[in-house]
Amino acid sequence: MIVKMRRVATEREIHAVEQRLSELGYNTGKLTGTDHTLIGVYGDISQLPHADISKMSGVEQLIQISRKYKRAAQKGDPLNLIYSSFNIGNVPIGDSLVVIAGPCSVESEAQIVASAHMAKEAGAHVLRGGVHKYRSSPYSGWEGIGSESKKALKKGLDMIVKAGREVDMPTAVEILDHTTIPLFEDCGVDCLQIGEPNSRNTVLLNELRNTELPVIHKRGHSLDAEEYLLWVERMMVRGKENIILCERGIRSHTKYTRNTLDLGTVAAFHYQLTGLPVAVDASHGSGIRDLVHPLSVASVFAGASVLIAEAHPNPMIAKSDGFQALYPEQLSNLIRAATAAWKLRENMKDLYIPSRALEQTYESRVDEDAAHFFGE
Amino acid sequence: MIVKMRRVATEREIHAVEQRLSELGYNTGKLTGTDHTLIGVYGDISQLPHADISKMSGVEQLIQISRKYKRAAQKGDPLNLIYSSFNIGNVPIGDSLVVIAGPCSVESEAQIVASAHMAKEAGAHVLRGGVHKYRSSPYSGWEGIGSESKKALKKGLDMIVKAGREVDMPTAVEILDHTTIPLFEDCGVDCLQIGEPNSRNTVLLNELRNTELPVIHKRGHSLDAEEYLLWVERMMVRGKENIILCERGIRSHTKYTRNTLDLGTVAAFHYQLTGLPVAVDASHGSGIRDLVHPLSVASVFAGASVLIAEAHPNPMIAKSDGFQALYPEQLSNLIRAATAAWKLRENMKDLYIPSRALEQTYESRVDEDAAHFFGE
Amino acid sequence: MIVKMRRVATEREIHAVEQRLSELGYNTGKLTGTDHTLIGVYGDISQLPHADISKMSGVEQLIQISRKYKRAAQKGDPLNLIYSSFNIGNVPIGDSLVVIAGPCSVESEAQIVASAHMAKEAGAHVLRGGVHKYRSSPYSGWEGIGSESKKALKKGLDMIVKAGREVDMPTAVEILDHTTIPLFEDCGVDCLQIGEPNSRNTVLLNELRNTELPVIHKRGHSLDAEEYLLWVERMMVRGKENIILCERGIRSHTKYTRNTLDLGTVAAFHYQLTGLPVAVDASHGSGIRDLVHPLSVASVFAGASVLIAEAHPNPMIAKSDGFQALYPEQLSNLIRAATAAWKLRENMKDLYIPSRALEQTYESRVDEDAAHFFGE
Amino acid sequence: MIVKMRRVATEREIHAVEQRLSELGYNTGKLTGTDHTLIGVYGDISQLPHADISKMSGVEQLIQISRKYKRAAQKGDPLNLIYSSFNIGNVPIGDSLVVIAGPCSVESEAQIVASAHMAKEAGAHVLRGGVHKYRSSPYSGWEGIGSESKKALKKGLDMIVKAGREVDMPTAVEILDHTTIPLFEDCGVDCLQIGEPNSRNTVLLNELRNTELPVIHKRGHSLDAEEYLLWVERMMVRGKENIILCERGIRSHTKYTRNTLDLGTVAAFHYQLTGLPVAVDASHGSGIRDLVHPLSVASVFAGASVLIAEAHPNPMIAKSDGFQALYPEQLSNLIRAATAAWKLRENMKDLYIPSRALEQTYESRVDEDAAHFFGE
Repeated sequence: MIVKMRRVATEREIHAVEQRLSELGYNTGKLTGTDHTLIGVYGDISQLPHADISKMSGVEQLIQISRKYKRAAQKGDPLNLIYSSFNIGNVPIGDSLVVIAGPCSVESEAQIVASAHMAKEAGAHVLRGGVHKYRSSPYSGWEGIGSESKKALKKGLDMIVKAGREVDMPTAVEILDHTTIPLFEDCGVDCLQIGEPNSRNTVLLNELRNTELPVIHKRGHSLDAEEYLLWVERMMVRGKENIILCERGIRSHTKYTRNTLDLGTVAAFHYQLTGLPVAVDASHGSGIRDLVHPLSVASVFAGASVLIAEAHPNPMIAKSDGFQALYPEQLSNLIRAATAAWKLRENMKDLYIPSRALEQTYESRVDEDAAHFFGE
Repeated sequence: MIVKMRRVATEREIHAVEQRLSELGYNTGKLTGTDHTLIGVYGDISQLPHADISKMSGVEQLIQISRKYKRAAQKGDPLNLIYSSFNIGNVPIGDSLVVIAGPCSVESEAQIVASAHMAKEAGAHVLRGGVHKYRSSPYSGWEGIGSESKKALKKGLDMIVKAGREVDMPTAVEILDHTTIPLFEDCGVDCLQIGEPNSRNTVLLNELRNTELPVIHKRGHSLDAEEYLLWVERMMVRGKENIILCERGIRSHTKYTRNTLDLGTVAAFHYQLTGLPVAVDASHGSGIRDLVHPLSVASVFAGASVLIAEAHPNPMIAKSDGFQALYPEQLSNLIRAATAAWKLRENMKDLYIPSRALEQTYESRVDEDAAHFFGE
Repeated sequence: MIVKMRRVATEREIHAVEQRLSELGYNTGKLTGTDHTLIGVYGDISQLPHADISKMSGVEQLIQISRKYKRAAQKGDPLNLIYSSFNIGNVPIGDSLVVIAGPCSVESEAQIVASAHMAKEAGAHVLRGGVHKYRSSPYSGWEGIGSESKKALKKGLDMIVKAGREVDMPTAVEILDHTTIPLFEDCGVDCLQIGEPNSRNTVLLNELRNTELPVIHKRGHSLDAEEYLLWVERMMVRGKENIILCERGIRSHTKYTRNTLDLGTVAAFHYQLTGLPVAVDASHGSGIRDLVHPLSVASVFAGASVLIAEAHPNPMIAKSDGFQALYPEQLSNLIRAATAAWKLRENMKDLYIPSRALEQTYESRVDEDAAHFFGE
Repeated sequence: MIVKMRRVATEREIHAVEQRLSELGYNTGKLTGTDHTLIGVYGDISQLPHADISKMSGVEQLIQISRKYKRAAQKGDPLNLIYSSFNIGNVPIGDSLVVIAGPCSVESEAQIVASAHMAKEAGAHVLRGGVHKYRSSPYSGWEGIGSESKKALKKGLDMIVKAGREVDMPTAVEILDHTTIPLFEDCGVDCLQIGEPNSRNTVLLNELRNTELPVIHKRGHSLDAEEYLLWVERMMVRGKENIILCERGIRSHTKYTRNTLDLGTVAAFHYQLTGLPVAVDASHGSGIRDLVHPLSVASVFAGASVLIAEAHPNPMIAKSDGFQALYPEQLSNLIRAATAAWKLRENMKDLYIPSRALEQTYESRVDEDAAHFFGE
């Protein structure tokens, strides 16, 4: 970390900051620039105590140097990236393409059973379906079959788990209320999903530290890459590892698509920032059914290893978000296309050359090339 | 509501939509345009059933005409706006300027007592202070004196309530966990605050329907005016009325200020969209201590009747967010300035003329003026 | 178009609007809703005269129904999309993958010749290179070899055209000043590029109507899909057709990537909104060299048929934007990967099923499915 | 400036960077942290040559420490801010409130004369009016009385200048085309305005360096504070000083207001970043006529000393943007309210205490207060 002093900071102020840091046990260094003095603070600053030096007289700004998220961070170096892997039920995550598909919500036993068969036949790996939904309007009329009580929640969870087992698929269900984690566990749900509006729900994230179930944590609309990873880190601080990142659109000025699917950040996650598996939910990320196919396939190349797609045996009668649910044929074809794309990505892996592998070669040619190009 | 049919929709498809709507008990009308047929649906559509016409064959889009939020909506007309009013403790909200001030967090009994005296002497009306904080990083080190357990939470709530009573000020405290509402009530907290990250926490909002305490609901970073009012509406659907809106910055591309304080939307709330009182929190809205004063005073003119300001008896030793906390002298001066601004706003009320009051006059002069300007 | 009257509009006001529209030669229809009266205006409204009804007494809002851009709009229907095609030099655009590659700027004759060979050997189709650059800071030190005068501009243009011809590649060069269009034409540049900061430069766009050269028009940071297409339309109103759209990142709250590459809108352009070819510039769209490869390949699946990539024979000595320029090996591998991706996309074309092809089938099953799922 | 080396950078790479910087004549310092080595570069780096160290092997990032804009930057220190002042015609800018008012566009001689009288009588100081307009759609039908040719432009400029002189008001007119600067000068226009879409028009800004006329430079929708000041700086690099900043809304996710008026950045400009006068255009900043009054008054408190407001003698027949133009009575009342607000702001100047004035006092009490609050 660097402490940047104000342009008008006095010697006394600079010294006071150094002394305080020293008292706190930190080693420091100093750069005395033309405008500003900078004080470098060495070592792990995650425990920097409360009486924070940012408030000391003459201090202008603290500049972060190392990444604030430690556990969620990429472990390898650019030439040898290390990725984590774990399971949802019996489905391995990270090393092969996984498609999580199903309806926006569990609507009835017959509907979720039909959905399970649809997903299985299309080639999906995990069955999804909401039991208690968040809705942006209180007048939407349908908040899920399990929205009214814990009893209703249990009934809905039982339905989807049973449907999943019938076709031998693990299940992923969104959780809204931290007090219902044991219920999700008891009902045999295989993966918990945190919806976008709860992306920064402190209490829910804190409690999820304690479950062994894998968690899909959807990125909040307003979170930059590093902010998001710090919220993910909140679940990881005590050792939880089985977390799937999920890009499902950020909020920007675009109006045609419901959200802005940020595949640049997906690529950054996969190639630079973290070793966690990355999911893309193009259904919510675009809000337009007919864009889910091309965007899902694109996501595979951007770095996703998990795709989430809403689909319904008959979207015409879906109780929620039917406008973005795929028709069964569309789901089936999407999975075929994404699988082909995954194979191609795997086959072309060696074509990706990180700059780190080339830097020294080109640096060694700088003088020669400069002479050639500029006569320098 | 209008149902916009696709450019290529068939007669059969158009007829099917009309028939479905008719079966559902809705009256309809039709406009047959050059490109699109539009079907108007009359009356209250909030109960439009699940088998939503948006998914019918040939339908392109539903266009909302009336406001989706009914209870949060402005009740009067432009020439006779109607505003709600209620109390926080013994402090009336809506009809006069109210300042809610205090530290980011309750740090100790002595600290919150000192803060209460500071706030009282500065002229603030309500004491604020966090007991269980959300933090953007799990490594921040301090999540509030009440973060560890319900017992700790109770202890912290008792502290701030006691401090408030010592100076005869009601208290406003953020709540993170829906299961602790009774505890907040029992401890005598006078107003609950929903933090920005929980702005769309369905379970928390649903539960807050049942408390009689007033609620400050902070607008989420990614919510447009109407989306935000729909989340507010979620608390109001069963009759809860004592809600204060709060603008505290949205997320945009700006980097210099921590968030973008959206005073345009504050003005829209106050002058056009809603009769609920509007608070502005310029501390979080800018993240820069030295901008809180001018932005708070500006907010009064934009339409705020409540100001929230973080202040600390000595920001240098604040355990959280000290960089944006006002020094006691700054708080005191801010309240003096804001009070003068409020008086001026009240005195100048009649200078604000809604267009509705002038439209007919200028329309009656259209021909004459057009002749004068354009010889038409 | 629909004219939405205010909730409090009088009969007289409604009638006045209808009458005015009728006088202007428009046919109208009316829907009298519970809250609002709506007046439908039929036919082509692009010539709706100045004394716009939006300002009439009692009018609340005009609601656009048809697309405002006519020439840039998709011509076919969802089952039969029609795409335009044309050439840059001898390179056909639209029907096969085209890669436009080269350095950020032409730095010397030797450098651009080396760049041309690099691009050719890597498999690129069009050579790019800036001669007069826009820079975000006036202190960048280098605004391009042609920034000082028209004579310098001519010299720079000559260099890149000559280098292109040496390897039989047409050239694409950014233009900043409308008075230099003839110079670009005379020098033999094959394609003009409008940079992102000039995306809404009225004078430049107006003048470009008159050149026969194809134009790459980069989408402005702050433009939504439809706003952007209206600026494109500005060049097309008198018949110009050979325009390439270009997504190169929008401005959102993301900080890690320099901009937010909006592939959702690329997909919307290609599959729903327009028949114009779409380019993606992942170099500017991410600002991070090591993300250009995955994002370019992803773009192909999102709907791009043109890729723009900055590359330099030795990025270590590039005079501008070297940090995002690809090394020659990286360019070569990117083109191999993108070509394979394009082939796969072409092979999988039939897997994409627009909803329009399925709607009637599923609608015919609505009753049966509803009975099965819900016992209705 | 700080050069941040990669986590995996070698000793050799670090040394090479130091050596290169040294060869270039820079003094450096070094901080060897746990993860990263940082190299500080002292002195003015604006001339740092092309073979930029950012591209050297092992370099991760350059971190800017001093402000990149030098001439636009605030000159004083927090306790003694220094503001520039100059004139538009005979109207002094900076030291008192100035209102620039008039129609969106000059429509006819009679109309601009009527507008001039309206503005004068309302108390405005400068007359505005567009002669060649940019429009977001090519189908808007009206691009200004001077859009067709230089002759038409001259005619329109003559009209507004004459109208201004009739009421003794200087004039401000938007300029779109760099080749017309002499024409604006010759016609006697007193102030040039750069519209938002041209905020980053390199050629136009470069040419404006040479005029002695004051310039209002509107902030681009997508520009953060510092990015904007760098574009302003482009005009100032050779000594031009008479520039007025103008906030007129940025592009964010808000939909209800046309743009997001960023008064937080206005406050940052006035209180922290620059000594240039700041204008606020609430007409474009909100796009809603009935919000212009409260937002303009709020802007005065946020730090604006110039207000821009669109007004029309009869907005019902305005040829462009009539929906956001004030009625004459509204303009008059707005100016009365803003003038009262300005007086109050001036009277309350001493209530604003920058933190710098308090820091040492509170720092001296840290130990005592910590002992009192925390028993430390």
